[in-house]
Amino acid sequence: MGKAEIITIGDELLIGQVVDTNSAWMAEQLLEVGISLYQITSVHDDAAHIRQAIDEALHRSDIVITTGGLGPTKDDITKAVLCDYFHTNLVPNAEVEAHIHDLYQDRPEVLNRLTATQWMVPANCKVLPNRVGSAPIMWWTMDGGRWTMHNAQLFCLPGVPYEMEIAMREQVLPAIYTLTAKRSDIRQRSGQNRTLLVSGIPESALAIHLEEWENALPENLHLAYLPKDGTIRLRIDALDAEAALEDKFEELKTLVREWLVIDEDKPLELVLGERLKAMGRTIATAESCTGGRLAALLNKHAGSSEWYMGSVVAYDNRIKEEVLGVPASVLNTVGAVSEETVRAMAEGVRTLMHTDYAIATSGIAGPSGGTKDKPVGTVWIACATPEGTFAECYHLGRLREQITLRACTKALIMLIKKL
Amino acid sequence: MGKAEIITIGDELLIGQVVDTNSAWMAEQLLEVGISLYQITSVHDDAAHIRQAIDEALHRSDIVITTGGLGPTKDDITKAVLCDYFHTNLVPNAEVEAHIHDLYQDRPEVLNRLTATQWMVPANCKVLPNRVGSAPIMWWTMDGGRWTMHNAQLFCLPGVPYEMEIAMREQVLPAIYTLTAKRSDIRQRSGQNRTLLVSGIPESALAIHLEEWENALPENLHLAYLPKDGTIRLRIDALDAEAALEDKFEELKTLVREWLVIDEDKPLELVLGERLKAMGRTIATAESCTGGRLAALLNKHAGSSEWYMGSVVAYDNRIKEEVLGVPASVLNTVGAVSEETVRAMAEGVRTLMHTDYAIATSGIAGPSGGTKDKPVGTVWIACATPEGTFAECYHLGRLREQITLRACTKALIMLIKKL
Repeated sequence: MGKAEIITIGDELLIGQVVDTNSAWMAEQLLEVGISLYQITSVHDDAAHIRQAIDEALHRSDIVITTGGLGPTKDDITKAVLCDYFHTNLVPNAEVEAHIHDLYQDRPEVLNRLTATQWMVPANCKVLPNRVGSAPIMWWTMDGGRWTMHNAQLFCLPGVPYEMEIAMREQVLPAIYTLTAKRSDIRQRSGQNRTLLVSGIPESALAIHLEEWENALPENLHLAYLPKDGTIRLRIDALDAEAALEDKFEELKTLVREWLVIDEDKPLELVLGERLKAMGRTIATAESCTGGRLAALLNKHAGSSEWYMGSVVAYDNRIKEEVLGVPASVLNTVGAVSEETVRAMAEGVRTLMHTDYAIATSGIAGPSGGTKDKPVGTVWIACATPEGTFAECYHLGRLREQITLRACTKALIMLIKKL
Repeated sequence: MGKAEIITIGDELLIGQVVDTNSAWMAEQLLEVGISLYQITSVHDDAAHIRQAIDEALHRSDIVITTGGLGPTKDDITKAVLCDYFHTNLVPNAEVEAHIHDLYQDRPEVLNRLTATQWMVPANCKVLPNRVGSAPIMWWTMDGGRWTMHNAQLFCLPGVPYEMEIAMREQVLPAIYTLTAKRSDIRQRSGQNRTLLVSGIPESALAIHLEEWENALPENLHLAYLPKDGTIRLRIDALDAEAALEDKFEELKTLVREWLVIDEDKPLELVLGERLKAMGRTIATAESCTGGRLAALLNKHAGSSEWYMGSVVAYDNRIKEEVLGVPASVLNTVGAVSEETVRAMAEGVRTLMHTDYAIATSGIAGPSGGTKDKPVGTVWIACATPEGTFAECYHLGRLREQITLRACTKALIMLIKKL
């Protein structure tokens, strides 16, 4: 399989001002065209460091993609480093110039002399269009065009996530696809994988449960455990084209059926949305401890307005009472974090928003507010459905962020299992 | 200044299944104890690759921190690689064993023979306690204990974010602080930086506005531009201890005063929350296109329940009308994405939740739903305050995720500027 590396360029990554979300997205896309990512390296806006990282990567891997350092400001030096590395100089590019004029036709204040430096490009690279931004996308083939595993390709992309994503989708991935299509040996089932998600069993207990089966796996199959937010994703990787991936995945599904949530690697909110849409049903949420996070998850993906109606984030008890109709007597006796409250919240928002389903959360996200009976991490979750309301109590750890994310995950799993 | 590197270990990072959020967090923490991060490298769960990355980093940098590969399952091999690299073998550690028994006292199903492998540790490392997990934290000093810039330190941490964070805070950072305190030359103002945030000017126009001043900056000061979600963070880095960082930062603030939002590197929701808390005021939100994201932001940080009351996510128009009191006549004439609607939403939720302030958003996040008059990216935002309600219309790009994040940012900026 073709081997790629990503080099992310920018001081902001190395002082912790920005999280590198680009690399994971690119890795996933590369895998889909049959390219395995070997390494990700983040380096400073420093000429010697960028140059060294690119040089090392081009000697190790078939495809190298850099992101960042292509802006018009003084701190962005990637283009200058590349001119130096490829013994060339910057020349004006008429297509990029026309594109930039078009891009900013309604914003003349952006068409200034700094923006004009964006259509200066290294003379010996191929320039690919950047539909949504001003930075040119540059492509070098190490031997002048022929694709072999030993003639590495270098693609240089902007670091702004949506510019990078469009550049990858529209330019880089099609180019790689065309290159690799000439080499049938790297467009195989190798590098493929299958993932399922389980919940309700500790990782070590699961590993012991699967031990005998895992030890008997052929050498070209590999099992990985990915615990996250109280769930475990199990992934089988096929190391070559002969691997019995599908057969073993079916065996694995049978072995874990007691804890199985879904048998694909898809966000739970998308799975729930697709099922609701197929059923022609709708949902609303009422959130206390998850504070809007569940709502944001549910309408993260386009098309959610077909099945998602809305949410009441009832952080304050008065909102639980006045907007959701939780009886004051319940709040005053058993409290906001209780089965009675969370049931009333779910039923209240289901009625208020006229939906088929509703999910409610109420818990203690901490760091303060915990008691002996209800320590930090205690979360009640209820689902109101046409068949009745059911509720569960969970203990989801000690840290605010962890508790919130796990509560969202548990809530989605509770309802998915009922649909 | 001391130089560090991070090596993140795990196939999940290189197939795009997990975003590396650990590195940015660690980078920020290291900077605070005077350590500059030189490089981040992500590698596979592959013995030769892990070994090579660690070896190269230890020869380049003073401190190397690895994360990941310390779980009890078969795919986690970091401990075995380290035994090989440091010519040692695994031995049982009584303290780790006692800690693990304590950790799982209420969950006997976790105390199985795989978990027992977690208290086997390499014989020649120092073991640091992991308060919240079972994986031991390992520390090697290359020459047996004395700290010099040429005797690198290796810390190996678990990859689970909250375990890593607690290990860093409670063990690794204090250890580094103690080590570096012995070397006064690396605990200087060097490596310091100051950041401010501006909004409402394109990056290139800002760079031209600042060009003369930036070109006159002394060699030991460096200006960086970080555009994000429709704002630009400007960061001045001091490259050595003599740099006139504070003076130049004050000059910069004066130069950008027209677009200045805040003069620190702090999340906007935290700035807003601190101001509301200091004023003893409260806030609620009514969200359409931001769909709960604004609520989730506002109560992301502990203590938000003091000033944040709740939100109505009114995705469906019926909710806007019935729960928030937006007149049907408004929705039927000017529509949901309009000044009238967003004003009525803000005022409606302010009344419903009895708060001093309220923010409302309504826009077209796409990909569908745009028209010629209201293309995708059109977002109306209103703030209801004790002094009256004001509203603005923005055009925030073409992509759903980008529009949602920018709308949250604009909403926070609108209210912060009024407080």
